[in-house]
Amino acid sequence: MADVILVLNAGSSSIKFSAFDVKGGELELVTRGQVEGLFSSPHFVAFDAKGEKTGEHKWGDGERLEHADAIAYLGAFLRGHGAGHRLIGVGHRVVHGGAQFTKPVLTNPEVLDELDKLTPLAPLHQPHNLKPIRIVAERNPDLPQVACFDTAFHATQAPLAQAFALPESITKNGVRRYGFHGLSYEYIASALPDIAPDAARGRTVVAHLGNGASLCAIHAGKSVASTMGFTAVDGLMMGTRCGNLDPGVILYMLDELGMNAREIEDLLYRSSGLLGVSGISGDMRALLASDDERARFATDLYVYRIAREIGSMSAALQGLDAIVFTAGIGEHSKEIRQRVCEQAAWWGIELDRKANESGGPRISTGSGKVSAWVIPTNEELMIARHTFALIDGKREGAST
Amino acid sequence: MADVILVLNAGSSSIKFSAFDVKGGELELVTRGQVEGLFSSPHFVAFDAKGEKTGEHKWGDGERLEHADAIAYLGAFLRGHGAGHRLIGVGHRVVHGGAQFTKPVLTNPEVLDELDKLTPLAPLHQPHNLKPIRIVAERNPDLPQVACFDTAFHATQAPLAQAFALPESITKNGVRRYGFHGLSYEYIASALPDIAPDAARGRTVVAHLGNGASLCAIHAGKSVASTMGFTAVDGLMMGTRCGNLDPGVILYMLDELGMNAREIEDLLYRSSGLLGVSGISGDMRALLASDDERARFATDLYVYRIAREIGSMSAALQGLDAIVFTAGIGEHSKEIRQRVCEQAAWWGIELDRKANESGGPRISTGSGKVSAWVIPTNEELMIARHTFALIDGKREGAST
Repeated sequence: MADVILVLNAGSSSIKFSAFDVKGGELELVTRGQVEGLFSSPHFVAFDAKGEKTGEHKWGDGERLEHADAIAYLGAFLRGHGAGHRLIGVGHRVVHGGAQFTKPVLTNPEVLDELDKLTPLAPLHQPHNLKPIRIVAERNPDLPQVACFDTAFHATQAPLAQAFALPESITKNGVRRYGFHGLSYEYIASALPDIAPDAARGRTVVAHLGNGASLCAIHAGKSVASTMGFTAVDGLMMGTRCGNLDPGVILYMLDELGMNAREIEDLLYRSSGLLGVSGISGDMRALLASDDERARFATDLYVYRIAREIGSMSAALQGLDAIVFTAGIGEHSKEIRQRVCEQAAWWGIELDRKANESGGPRISTGSGKVSAWVIPTNEELMIARHTFALIDGKREGAST
Repeated sequence: MADVILVLNAGSSSIKFSAFDVKGGELELVTRGQVEGLFSSPHFVAFDAKGEKTGEHKWGDGERLEHADAIAYLGAFLRGHGAGHRLIGVGHRVVHGGAQFTKPVLTNPEVLDELDKLTPLAPLHQPHNLKPIRIVAERNPDLPQVACFDTAFHATQAPLAQAFALPESITKNGVRRYGFHGLSYEYIASALPDIAPDAARGRTVVAHLGNGASLCAIHAGKSVASTMGFTAVDGLMMGTRCGNLDPGVILYMLDELGMNAREIEDLLYRSSGLLGVSGISGDMRALLASDDERARFATDLYVYRIAREIGSMSAALQGLDAIVFTAGIGEHSKEIRQRVCEQAAWWGIELDRKANESGGPRISTGSGKVSAWVIPTNEELMIARHTFALIDGKREGAST
């Protein structure tokens, strides 16, 4: 009977899942999928490791599915398809570990209470990330669950990289740069030694360009700086998020435009970025396919902001040996990769156009001073690894 | 009889002045000084070109001096000390020229009305900058007056450098990066060809490190990017201003700390930066003289943020040939210059310690790839030059 680790990534209206077989200490994906549109038009879909659809269910428009219902449905689906498998633990993506949780942790009621306290730091995500942990614990109190944090990988950053120039009256509340996408960066850092040993030992900027987007400056496998700060709205321009913004603009929105906090939040998170600048779409593919000059300006700004922030990351690293592209846009848009590398050519990046067309992994020529790479990220595998390591440690701990 | 140009720089509670003789088209400082503490404890002081005090007056604690009173006092003082001089024009520092005023302009009621409309973009400064123009115009309707803008030098920046990733509903109000300290950067750009011809032709980052602080990326004399954005609170850490801040922090202050816009503004402008981080002082000299570890952390953060932003500026310039330090801290703190150059050493800056001790102008060795300089700024002379040029042009225009 094979042991299985389930990975859950729950948001406000969706739950993504994947399951990994534990085979002699190695983790192998067996199924993945999601339930989305929980409160509008719930839709479950599952795929096997090859990407073949193995299950689908629609509840119909206007139906409401609570997180608990979705998890119950998922549990039934997995039991139905999991003959010969035994669930040994569940790993969860949790956006915020605060200053306290700098590595993955086995959850219990006390830990969950501590994680609840971080909700003010990530009100849009933290409660949804934690909900499934309690739901599963209620049904299976003895099943080990592990919380893996998007902030944890950045705990190695120096205090200078984490600090805002604000007084203690504010910073004592935990207001500092945390950085996010940490599970993605940790996966890339774990994959680099095999793919690009020099980059793994050196000063590397990883560009996680997905729906959210950030850069991480990594030196010898450790996070040195990141473009995301206190929240996931800072740094790079994203699909619908503004990224870096003069704080005075918010005061202007409050004072002169008469906006309130909710309207500003909605604007910065959901109506800005590629969508806001183009007025067309927050989807990079749609903008690259468009002839509209606003689409071109939006993608130009996207690339320009990445180039500027690579400069800032290089300063944090005091040098630059490699750039790695990952996540949706980073893995799939050869055009964005090319344009970023062209903007960054003065650093000594020489794009190998043919390698870039075919997706890498190495997309720079051998003669450039700075190498460039494409490495698909795998946050779910990273969570599964952490979960297995903590469960395994617990077992060993128990047996000694 | 010598022609004189008066330069005024008016704030909410002070008016700085300087007067320049026009000698064969050259401008020569004859006097400078200020009236400060207008509404608390007014204090007038004037110096000659050598820095010898030539006049002083105190009104006493609790006295209130309107801007008009201060200008009347200043006028009487100048007339009393200006035998053989004739005032031919007044130049004013005006913080905001908006998108419309991209160079200095002769003022008239229509221009002033247009400049009033920019007050929402700089509510703390614009009204005080404009007030003296109207006061002088009322008393001397025929005296030419010129408004010189802190934003104008940055008008050459590409739209990508000026854009925030916000939707048109916001940007149509003029919400973009303007950049400030433009008169200082323009003066430095005008001085560079004589002092550092290679830097003048090349890619230079100028660090204006005063009470306010920003960087400007200048390529062949033109502004390419700046760390200050929509307001003068963005970018570098300053004496009491926070600089770069995750916009999500403002939402947190509104939602979780229950602060209102005025409290947030006060915090970001007056209780942050060196003062906020150290808890000791916003004055760099006091922090450098302190043994307190919070003072050390504050100055470390100040230097770190400069180094990070030099990286971002280099990316905007696609390279780096020179760094120039100017303004109070830039001109006078050899320690901060040294620490910035050490952080930036990986770019190829080699500090010449002896030259740095003695204040430059060149403070890098001949063998470094990137040169470093100290050049005292002179915003008043820049304003006087602009004022003279426009008056002279007006006269020539009238005579043809």
